[in-house]
Amino acid sequence: MKMSTLPVRGTKDYLPKEVEVRDYLRTKIENTYKKFGFNKINTPAMEDIERLNKSDGGENLAMIFKLLKRGQKLDLSSPDLNENDLVDSGLRYDLTMPLSRYYANNRHLLPTPFKALQIDKVFRAERPQKGRLREFYQCDIDIIGDASINAEMELIAATTSALKAIGFSDFTVRIDERRILTDMILAAGFSQEDIASVCISFDKLDKIGLDGVKSELLEKEYAPATVEKFMQILSAADNDALATAEKYCSNPDVIANLQKVLAFSNSISEGNFTTVYDKSLVRGMGYYTGMVFEIVSPKFGSSIAGGGRYDGMIGKFVGESVPAVGFSIGFERISAIFMEENFVPPAKEKLVLAYEDTDNFADVVLKAKSLQAQDKIVIMLKRSKKFGKQLDMLIAEGAKLLINFADGSSKVLS
Amino acid sequence: MKMSTLPVRGTKDYLPKEVEVRDYLRTKIENTYKKFGFNKINTPAMEDIERLNKSDGGENLAMIFKLLKRGQKLDLSSPDLNENDLVDSGLRYDLTMPLSRYYANNRHLLPTPFKALQIDKVFRAERPQKGRLREFYQCDIDIIGDASINAEMELIAATTSALKAIGFSDFTVRIDERRILTDMILAAGFSQEDIASVCISFDKLDKIGLDGVKSELLEKEYAPATVEKFMQILSAADNDALATAEKYCSNPDVIANLQKVLAFSNSISEGNFTTVYDKSLVRGMGYYTGMVFEIVSPKFGSSIAGGGRYDGMIGKFVGESVPAVGFSIGFERISAIFMEENFVPPAKEKLVLAYEDTDNFADVVLKAKSLQAQDKIVIMLKRSKKFGKQLDMLIAEGAKLLINFADGSSKVLS
Repeated sequence: MKMSTLPVRGTKDYLPKEVEVRDYLRTKIENTYKKFGFNKINTPAMEDIERLNKSDGGENLAMIFKLLKRGQKLDLSSPDLNENDLVDSGLRYDLTMPLSRYYANNRHLLPTPFKALQIDKVFRAERPQKGRLREFYQCDIDIIGDASINAEMELIAATTSALKAIGFSDFTVRIDERRILTDMILAAGFSQEDIASVCISFDKLDKIGLDGVKSELLEKEYAPATVEKFMQILSAADNDALATAEKYCSNPDVIANLQKVLAFSNSISEGNFTTVYDKSLVRGMGYYTGMVFEIVSPKFGSSIAGGGRYDGMIGKFVGESVPAVGFSIGFERISAIFMEENFVPPAKEKLVLAYEDTDNFADVVLKAKSLQAQDKIVIMLKRSKKFGKQLDMLIAEGAKLLINFADGSSKVLS
Repeated sequence: MKMSTLPVRGTKDYLPKEVEVRDYLRTKIENTYKKFGFNKINTPAMEDIERLNKSDGGENLAMIFKLLKRGQKLDLSSPDLNENDLVDSGLRYDLTMPLSRYYANNRHLLPTPFKALQIDKVFRAERPQKGRLREFYQCDIDIIGDASINAEMELIAATTSALKAIGFSDFTVRIDERRILTDMILAAGFSQEDIASVCISFDKLDKIGLDGVKSELLEKEYAPATVEKFMQILSAADNDALATAEKYCSNPDVIANLQKVLAFSNSISEGNFTTVYDKSLVRGMGYYTGMVFEIVSPKFGSSIAGGGRYDGMIGKFVGESVPAVGFSIGFERISAIFMEENFVPPAKEKLVLAYEDTDNFADVVLKAKSLQAQDKIVIMLKRSKKFGKQLDMLIAEGAKLLINFADGSSKVLS
């Protein structure tokens, strides 16, 4: 019987060339982060289902892949079964929740502040569509235990350096502060309970424009006067964002720190990127408590990194408040850009060692090993009827030189 | 509310030091394999549940983590629910079944023979016990599409080279041929249908000895004369294994090829390992069809690699017979050995750049970046009350030099 060979819906097989590009990017990014002293950690893909369900994942909670209980723990005979009876764990939907648990579990063994680096797979039951995968990699750095804005600044320095290391330039770092937007919302006359809902509408500014946001807020039946006042504040911010922020923000330190981080990011750019205060940067996750940032590349018309401060989350595990801030590079987006551009990563010299069936294969291997010791890739290939076709395929994969085992003669391939 | 912080039963959190060791080993092994021309591929962790259930996984099939259906596809209202109604996919329990599917799905884009390299995570609902994890890495190379014994020989060369690259020596390569054991079993008078069961008993030879195997076969109610004849053959093999193999094996090519591979493995060892024909090497998996191999390290008293030829499996996906042979390094076992030996992988120079809160942090970062450009790890650390304690922790992690940002003075740490 012949079985279906397609990967599961929403997942994909990576061909060798794509793996090479992805590994190249991963290694470059990882090495840059390590030079800033970030510590690579590894957490399990599986997490306790209760922990996942109670985590700060927002809409991701509806996309958790859940794992069926096993053995006697799975009881299908009960009359009113619900999902919770059937599952005991699930696959992580991001790397932040596992990091919080990891830090709480191991903090006595970790330095303070703890600078974590994770590049690993996460799982989400997304509706499959172009560019949306159900298994994909995230690439996060986080600083845990530093309440000062040096944490934000170090993350910006490390992330912009990593992007530079893989060849990105002319990108823009956008920075905002949750508390400024919150204060503007309150200043307009919305109540504390309205903040989340107003943020959700405001987050669509890029897509639907200010008029669209206004319509949506009115549709949500907020008082027209309140909505109008909010629009006035935002219009004022359009003219002079920082002055407006200063006017409405209740905490002067928030503004001072924002200005410090903006100045910092400009100072370290070395002409490679620009930095702006972007009053309309909301960033979806409900857990952000302070500064939020995003990096956009106009050339590729998309966000390639994002993050922010989330001082509340780790405390849920530790039992006491622990400050934390994170920055995540969109690894899948960046890999897709490099694939679209037909990027070929630098590679070791690749050569083909051709031998006859009558040659002593041990001698062929010893010859190959001696060439490998010179840091070359050596593909041993037996001369047969298929030799020409096989060689063409290897040339397409970058083989540059053919060596005849028998007489040691060589020929440049092209 | 404070939540539990332990990882899910049977999984573990890896501390930075352990990740460093694991990444070092992974990279060394991977680079060795790549120099032999193996192509690294990536397959999804999730596989279709029907494909998993029908695969050649033997006892692993009972350990599959199954993923609950989502949305409307999950119907809990039906009266006679069984597991199959609830799940649509599961996590891969090894890398061989996904490789078979991958090859069938992508073979028109791959060279022939295809030499695959995979280092990735697999999942098994093992009973948790020391050294048995439910999430762990496998490290496999496979050659698909080469029916000749050059495939076996190349895998042996690559695997022994990888072990040498991470510092293993004095290990033993054990080689056997499924068809010799099968013919011995038939020669003793067992029937074709008895082979699997006899193999299972014989596989315990290391643990229970020849008498134990005999008792078990008698308990299984095989004819005492047949069991006795089997014991006689095995005793003869104890005296001269190859001569006995030759006597009972119905296919002379099998013996000739085994001898060629043994001679090959001896020729390429360069004094680093020994090679033996081991008539009692069964290796569990039911899908092996020809030669099987295993590498044991007497120093660590355990098997550190294993594999064999499995010509039947890929055909199930492709629809036509495709020869294949694989060799897998026990990555978790090897990592555990290196951790037990307190191995410290080579690392870049790590230094601490100390600054005052009053220093301009952008200048500190620019200084750090200039040092990083010299391939150093630079940890920026603010002088505060905790500075001494923080520095001690960084020294424990390998920091060797302290540089004062203010005056550029430096001090060796120890």
